[in-house]
Parts: sequence; C-alpha cells; structure tokens
Amino acid sequence: MCGIVGYIGKEEAAPILLDGLSKLEYRGYDSAGIAVFDGEKINVAKTKGRLKALSELTHDGILLPGTLGIGHTRWATHGSPSDTNAHPHLNTEETIVVVHNGIIENYIKLKKKLEGRGYQFVSETDTEVIAHLLDYYYKGNPLEAVTKIMHRMEGSYALGIIFKEHPNELYAVRKDSPLIVGHTDGGSIIASDVPAVLKYTRDVYFIENEEIVRLTEQDMEFFTVDEEPLQKKPVHIDWDADAAEKGGYEHFMLKEMYEQPKAIADTFSPRIKDGQIVIEELGMNDEEIRAVSKIVIVACGSAYHAGMTGKYVLEGMARIPVEVDLASEFRYRDPILAEGTLVIVVSQSGETADSLAALREAKKKGCKVLGIVNVVGSSIAREADNVLYTWAGPEIAVATTKAYSCQLTALYLLAMRFAYARGAISESELAEMIEDLKKLPAQVEMLLSHKDRIQKFANRYLAARSIFFIGRGIDYAISLEGSLKLKEVSYIHSEAYAAGELKHGTISLIEEGTLVTAVLTQEDLYKKMLSNMEEVKTRGAFVMAVTNEGNLDVEKAADYVVYIPETNRFFTNSLAIVPLQLFGYYVAVGRGCDVDKPRNLAKSVTVE
Amino acid sequence: MCGIVGYIGKEEAAPILLDGLSKLEYRGYDSAGIAVFDGEKINVAKTKGRLKALSELTHDGILLPGTLGIGHTRWATHGSPSDTNAHPHLNTEETIVVVHNGIIENYIKLKKKLEGRGYQFVSETDTEVIAHLLDYYYKGNPLEAVTKIMHRMEGSYALGIIFKEHPNELYAVRKDSPLIVGHTDGGSIIASDVPAVLKYTRDVYFIENEEIVRLTEQDMEFFTVDEEPLQKKPVHIDWDADAAEKGGYEHFMLKEMYEQPKAIADTFSPRIKDGQIVIEELGMNDEEIRAVSKIVIVACGSAYHAGMTGKYVLEGMARIPVEVDLASEFRYRDPILAEGTLVIVVSQSGETADSLAALREAKKKGCKVLGIVNVVGSSIAREADNVLYTWAGPEIAVATTKAYSCQLTALYLLAMRFAYARGAISESELAEMIEDLKKLPAQVEMLLSHKDRIQKFANRYLAARSIFFIGRGIDYAISLEGSLKLKEVSYIHSEAYAAGELKHGTISLIEEGTLVTAVLTQEDLYKKMLSNMEEVKTRGAFVMAVTNEGNLDVEKAADYVVYIPETNRFFTNSLAIVPLQLFGYYVAVGRGCDVDKPRNLAKSVTVE
Repeated sequence: MCGIVGYIGKEEAAPILLDGLSKLEYRGYDSAGIAVFDGEKINVAKTKGRLKALSELTHDGILLPGTLGIGHTRWATHGSPSDTNAHPHLNTEETIVVVHNGIIENYIKLKKKLEGRGYQFVSETDTEVIAHLLDYYYKGNPLEAVTKIMHRMEGSYALGIIFKEHPNELYAVRKDSPLIVGHTDGGSIIASDVPAVLKYTRDVYFIENEEIVRLTEQDMEFFTVDEEPLQKKPVHIDWDADAAEKGGYEHFMLKEMYEQPKAIADTFSPRIKDGQIVIEELGMNDEEIRAVSKIVIVACGSAYHAGMTGKYVLEGMARIPVEVDLASEFRYRDPILAEGTLVIVVSQSGETADSLAALREAKKKGCKVLGIVNVVGSSIAREADNVLYTWAGPEIAVATTKAYSCQLTALYLLAMRFAYARGAISESELAEMIEDLKKLPAQVEMLLSHKDRIQKFANRYLAARSIFFIGRGIDYAISLEGSLKLKEVSYIHSEAYAAGELKHGTISLIEEGTLVTAVLTQEDLYKKMLSNMEEVKTRGAFVMAVTNEGNLDVEKAADYVVYIPETNRFFTNSLAIVPLQLFGYYVAVGRGCDVDKPRNLAKSVTVE
Repeated sequence: MCGIVGYIGKEEAAPILLDGLSKLEYRGYDSAGIAVFDGEKINVAKTKGRLKALSELTHDGILLPGTLGIGHTRWATHGSPSDTNAHPHLNTEETIVVVHNGIIENYIKLKKKLEGRGYQFVSETDTEVIAHLLDYYYKGNPLEAVTKIMHRMEGSYALGIIFKEHPNELYAVRKDSPLIVGHTDGGSIIASDVPAVLKYTRDVYFIENEEIVRLTEQDMEFFTVDEEPLQKKPVHIDWDADAAEKGGYEHFMLKEMYEQPKAIADTFSPRIKDGQIVIEELGMNDEEIRAVSKIVIVACGSAYHAGMTGKYVLEGMARIPVEVDLASEFRYRDPILAEGTLVIVVSQSGETADSLAALREAKKKGCKVLGIVNVVGSSIAREADNVLYTWAGPEIAVATTKAYSCQLTALYLLAMRFAYARGAISESELAEMIEDLKKLPAQVEMLLSHKDRIQKFANRYLAARSIFFIGRGIDYAISLEGSLKLKEVSYIHSEAYAAGELKHGTISLIEEGTLVTAVLTQEDLYKKMLSNMEEVKTRGAFVMAVTNEGNLDVEKAADYVVYIPETNRFFTNSLAIVPLQLFGYYVAVGRGCDVDKPRNLAKSVTVE
C-alpha cells in the first residue's frame, strides 16, 4: 500500500530517496518522510501531504546530508494522515529508524507489553511498535533483533531499517508485502516497487516471505528468519516505466484483481482472534449488537452492490432486517428511520459526495452510523460514529475490483459478528465459516489463474450490443456488479436482472446469440435458475454460467461454464465475481478501451 | 369492459346475439348470457366460461326462440364470475331484463333501499340493482322508468333493456360506457363495440352520454335524459374487422392508452364519498390502519414499478415505512416480517405465479395481505385477505398501460386513506388531493392529444442502440416504467437509473447523440436533476425532459421538452408516464415491431 525506498552508498541519500518516492507517487499516498544518517545523528523529515512539501521542507534533500537513508510514502491504515503518523518512525533514543508497509495485526498487544516496560509512544501507528520492539530486542546484533521481532509480529510487513550503531548497513525484511533490492553504480538500494529503482538498475532481487537482507555499499547478504544465509539470483527487468508501475500487468485493473487475495486476507485476518470475529472499531458490545432492530446500508455504484450482498448475508446469517438504498436517493427521500436502526455507509474513497450526505442525514435523524471505508481519515471515516476499514490499499483503476472484494469481506465479518452475538449461529457454525473465509484468498487466486480461458471466451463478444446477467438472491447481487464491471470499462450496454424478473418484459430483447450470464451458486435456487436459463436459451440466447463445482447438469442449460470451488453459501459472491471481472476486463481490452480510465468516469465521485 | 349486443327485427335474435358476442370475444370475458322474448316469456340462458358453452347450452340459440333479445359477455367487477352473476339480469317477476357494462357506484345504497321495499336479490352484481330499480319505477312507460333510474344511478353504464309489456321495443342507454346502434336488413341492432355489428351494417349511431334510444324493427328514436327527442346522424365505418376490434386504433396498446382517462376515473370515483376516501373492501378501520407498522409491496414487472411509486407515495404522504420487493426474490429469501406488517401484492391478471407464491409466503408468515388486482375472482383476489380492484377493464396488449395507471391510482387512494386515518394529512389537504385526483383523467387526455408530436420525435430514434431514463425519487419510479415500456415493445436496450447513480459507472456508455430521457417533476429535486442532465449533455447526450409546466429554464439543459400540467406532487407519475408510453409505442411502430404481442412475452406470466 505504502511506498518504501532505502539507499546506502557513495552518493547523498536524500535526493535518491526523494526521486525514488516520486516514482511511487502514482500509487497514491497521504504523507511522506525520509530519514538520513549524517554520521552522528539520524535526521528525520516528514510531513502530511504531497512529496513536493517534503522536498521543500528538506530543500530537495540538502538539509538531510548523509549516504545512508530510508524513505516512505504513507497511505494511512492505522492512525489518520498526519505529520506525526508519517514514517519513518524512531525509537525513543533515536538510534533505530524504520519504514514499514503492511499491517501489524497484533500491534495493540505488543504496544501494551512495551508500554508496560516503560516505552512511550508518540504516534497512533502500528509501525512505531516496530521501532520500540527493535529497541527492546537489540543487544548489539541487528540481525538477531530483526529475527526476534519477526517471530513476535503477526501480519504483513516490508521494512527498511537503520541502526545508528551500524552505519554501514541497511536492513530490509519482508512478509506478505513486496520488497526488492538491487545495486546502483555506487551503492545498494531497496524499494517496495520496481519503478523506484528503474533509474539505477534493471537487475533486482525479489525478497521472499520471511527473508532478511543486509545491504552495504558493495554487498548484499540474504538470511532466513533463523539467521541462516541464503543464495538468491537477480531477475532482469525489461519493463518500461509504465509497465513497471503496473507491476508488469497490462493495466492497473488487472493488477488490482490479482491483489485481491492479499487484500481480502488483509481485511479479515486481523479480525479473527481465538476463533472469534473481533471488530474493536465497531464500538459495540454484544448487548448493543442485540439491540439493533434494523440495518440500512447506503452506498453508490459498486459499493451499493456490495451492500446488496450485505443485505442477503446479514438477513440470512444474522436474521436482522436490512434495507439497501442508493445514497443519492436516501438523502432526499426523508427516510423513516426507527430507533435502533444502524446505518452502514460503504465507500472506497470515503469521499463519495452522496454517501457523505446520506451519512449526515442519518446522523441528523439520530442513527448510529458505521462506515465501511478504504481510506483512513477520509470524510466518511471522520464523520461516522465508527469505521470498519477495508484494507485493500490504494486502488488506481477507476473500475473497482479489490476494494469491492474487501467491502464484501468486511460485510461478511460484520454478519458473522452479529449472527454470533445474536445467537443466530452456533460456535461450530462460526468456526466453519472462519475456515471458509480463510480459504477465500487461495480460491480467488485459483480462479484468477483461469484468465486465459476467460479471455478467449471474452474475445467472442467484442461486438456484442447487449449482454444480460441474471441471478437469484445473493447471485442477483453479484450479477449487478458483474454487469457494472463489464459496462463501465467496455461501454457495452449490459444489464442485470433478478432471474425471475426477466420474463416480465426484458426477455423481449433476447435474440439469436445474445449473451446471458447466469450465476447460480445457491443450492435452493439452483433448479429455478436452470429453468430461467432454459427460458432464454429457447429464445436463442448463448448462456454462460458461473456455478459451484459439482453442478455438472448445468451444462445442459449452459453453453459455457465457469466452476467456482466450494465455500459457505454466504461467501460465494467473492468467488463468482472473479470470472465476471476477468470477462469485463478482457472484453474491454479486446475492444481497445481505456480500461483504467473509462471515458466520463472519475475514481472518486465527489459531486452529487 | 364487458360486451353488449341487442337485436329486434324479423330474424331469430339468438343466433345474431351469439354471433355478435363472438365478435367481442377478443376483449376477454369470464361468462356470457342471452335473454330472448318468445312472445310470452323472457327466456334467459347464461353460464360461466366460454361462449362455446353458451352455444351448447342453447343449441346455438335454437332453444331460445324469438326476435327480440339482448346478450352479454361479462368481465367481472362486482361479484365473482359465476352462472348467477352472469348477465342478463331480471326483475323478480321476470318482466324486465337488462344487460350492463360499467359500474354503478352507488349500488349498495340503492340495493339497501330496494331491499327495504321488499326486493330480493339473487346475485352479487351491481347490475341486478338496475333490473329491480326499473321494476320499481316502471308504471307502464318504459322511457319514464329509464330516465328515472338514470337520475338516481351514479357511475358508468351502457344498458340494453327489454320490457315484456313492450315486445316491439328495445331500449339502449349510455353514460361513460360505449354504445352504438344501427339498422340491419330486417331490424335494429345495438352493441357496445363496432366489431359486433360490422356483419350487418357499416352505418352506426354513436350514443352519447345520457342519451336513450328506443329501437323498433324499423325505427330508432333518440331522447335526452329529460325525455326530449334528439336528432342524430349516422357515421359510416370503413374499418375492417381487425381495425374495428381496436376501435379504430392501430394497436390495442394505443387504444388502451386512450382508455386510461376512463379507467383511472373508474378506479377512483366509486371510492370518493362525501369528501372522504372510502375503501370498504380494504376491511380495515381507522384503528387497524393506525396499527400498521410497515408495508411491504410485492409484485413483478410494471406492477413492481407501480409498487415503487407506491413506496414514495405511502412513505411521503402517510409516513409509513414501505419496502418494495420483486415477487420472485421475496418468495425465496425467507423475508423477515415483523408483526403489524401489511403485505400488498399488485398484479393485473391476479394470476402472476411469483406474486401468488409471494402472497402465500406472506400469509404463512402471519401477515395480512391486500391484493391490488384487475381480474375479479383471480387466484390472488381469492387468496388475499382483502382486494382493492383496479377497474381498468380487460387489457389485451401485452405491454400494460391502463392497468398500470389504475394500479397507481389504487395506491394513491390507499395512501390518502392511510395518511388521513393516521393524521399525516389534514382534512383540507385531503380535499385538495381529491380535487387533483379528479383532474387526472382530463389531464391524461390532454397529454394523449400530443401524440403526433411525440411520434415525430420518436421517429428520430428508431435506430438507437441504447436509451437511458433518469429521475430522482418518485420520478425514478416512473423512469423504470418508461424504460420497460420502450424496451419490451421496441427491443431497444433501454435502462432506467436513479439520476444520481448514473455517474457511478454507467455514464461511460453515454456518447454523442445517446438519448437520455429525464423526468423532473419534483420541485425539491429539480436543481439536482438539472445538474444530472448537464452531466450527460456535456458528454454528448441528447436530452429529452418531462417536467412541470412553468419549468421553462429546463430548456437550457434539455433538447426536447414535454410539459405536464400541475397536480399534487405525489400524482405526477400518472401524467409523466403518458409521453413515455407514447414514445415507447411510436418507436416500436416505427421499427415495425409487433407492438401488441412482443416476441418472447406473455400477457400473464403464470410460470416462475
């Protein structure tokens, strides 16, 4: 999510750090900072806002002399964007400095432990814990301290670390967050992403999970978490700068689809503790959860579709009545909100104008508002009573993929928490759900691996005029999102229908060869869906089906089938969306559309 | 709604009556009957079911000899379809017999009065009241009796009447229901519609409101309700049989659009009494109405769109929370229905399979169910706890127009009744609303008169690939219906959006010349709508607007404007739909589509 750069060598570090960070600007960030060791002291400069402000603050780096340094652009996850929360973070004696990408899931526990030992914290970040933890374990051997903290930290991290007592060394560590290292002409460099190093080298080492690197001006040594040395080979990068930004993917949209497994895991894993769903930021105890009489989910676009899924999941799993409304409609219709209504506002950016206005309307009417938001410190995050963050990281493609998937995940967590607190599911049911949730990232990854097959299929529909998506129940919700994905990037007019509703008018549009995509993942609706598929097939439609593994008789009613692996019936949307995303994406690519920036659209809709 | 035929002359009446009725079969009916005077006695044969059954019952008419007779095909409004409720209806002495189209609004009052005078009723119909009323006022002069009952009856009627004591005369009367008379070779004939007489004559007299005709074998005399003689001229009909069925309109769809003013009036006027909305069939007193905590409206297709309007009107006017759900979704999602929930099922045919199943689901969960249905005695009418009938009459075009408009009207009545009972509107507000309601038929008629202008405009969009409809609040509901109308008959892919939602993806489909139809009838949303129109216009859209008279500045944001006259803000849908219906219709006509029977569609969807 954030950007990391580090340098050790003959040159002045600060200009290299600033330049490297500028190459990562496209990813989005809310604050930036650098730390450079000047031979005596580790000097830190950091600020909320653009890199330009950091360059001005440091006179383009001149104010921070020295040839060993680390830099960071932050995209807030824990603690709002501010000068204080910006990286790098120091230990109290200012002898150790660290930059961090990722999320330390057990940081609260670690922080309490450190506070108990007298450590004082200045920021709200999970990263500052790392600096103090290193301080606590550092007894003169940096490698030992690093491996010790690795054994104690849970979550994901890529780190750049400097120890003042080891001025000729730069440490880099990785678990579940990307990190690369390479040699420059007169030194060594680390970075979270390829674009930051392209100017200096095209031969880079990709650090794997739980590996550590010790860089010096000339050398780099690799170690396992057990301090055993490792041999690694460099990889030659022949991407141009543009491809490098996209991590080698043709478009951000595809890159972000591939980031879904990690994003989904980042969203749920910190919230599963000892077999329970723990959502501290919800700010509600069991009793308060049981007192909720109704939930109203308000959102726009894909977030609205996530809300539709949320309705089915929350009603079905927790037996709470849920209403979903478009924010632009909700805010103006003087909604009737009874006491005990919880309003949930879902928004990637946290700045969607209509959603923000809906939030204010709900608060004016005395409702408690929970935000499900991807951007820390955004307006909706600030104004909601509580915020459940989706840790999808910055999303660059206008058409959302990973942020949407994380919204689904957040709503599952909420439903599980509510269902268990309200006695609607048993402990063993909860345990099963948690197991299924944990399988989702690998299952999404597996589905993504079928991309070539979907691309081949998509290429047959480049000239389609109309495409329809049908589903029942929760599969209707995913049909809406699948249709929107296709439509917004390919400009083909697609539309989703509750499968039972098509025959009340719209079926007249079905002609020979019209593509109808049917989603059928729910056992109790399976036969009804087969009938609806027959209805359109009889009228000439070509039917693509997305269904569960094992539903082999679907092939009688469908011409093309994508199977999704087994999961809890409430989680199928997270799998079914993957082939639909790929389909929309490849149709758009085949039609030569500007996939990442479709015409007429903005990433964050801050107008009404 | 029903069909009337009558004959007096040289020939045997029964075969002429049966033939005439067969020409009206296309209109739909549920029972049929004839009455023929044989010189001594008025013989009646009537039966539930098809005309074929009546022909068999009478041996093709041979069993009912005589040259004076009347016949009827009934489409139930008061009293379910049955042998007993079928017309003709007799007085007790069987000296007067009558057939009737229309609705006698004050029939309950009249019936009580007659019962007080010893009259006994055998059927549940409003028509039987007419027979007994004629008996009561008949003192030897048929014309006098007829005018007397006309002064006492409220509602609409076309009547055919025989008085046994006047065996050479046949009487015909009309108010707000069609009736024509003409000469045959050897006699005179009356009928509710042209197709029934085409075989005998092409020169017919159209009876106007409150006119009476006395027919003999040779002659016909016209009178006013004050028994003054009238001169009338015949009209030559050059329609072929097909055109005659459509009343001279090119399609049933157009004919039924033109029947809307009457259908709307038929639906509301019997329910306005002494400045109050009286819905006896609702079966709820003020206290029960106040006890309703929530309304769930369940329907499919256009009826679902009427439900959407109902949500806005009921919530806005009566401040009751309303949820609208697709019947096919509702029935399978195990809905959570709290005590005090009233479920309203809307269906033209009363046989829609999904709606019927939803009704059963709601009843199983202990909810009170109100049906809003157009077909008396249909499954939904029978199974609902109470039924509010829309008196639209039979609808033949697959794409609904007048039945939909009557559903809106029924929902307005319900909202007014609830709002007043719950103290959400004052007596004077109610009075104003009733005044506005009464103006709707004339306003709809005025809007229909602009058909040529709309046709000219529609002709520009015959080759359109995609058309969008946008609106906010209640105007979103009518946009959904306008879009469906266009789509189902023209096969052009159109789609409706809440205007604030378009920019969350779908706006990427707008290109140079794309037609966007914007409905903006709500003052508080007017400026927001103008902004949304600007958004699409900037991206090349051609904008058609439907807005209130006086909103002249709309012309800055729209390229083509249709103005609707002033009405209550909750009733605007009934006016805005008219140009949208005409637009959809004329696009389909221009494209050469089979307007009345669009491909793949059925009038009543009795499968899931």
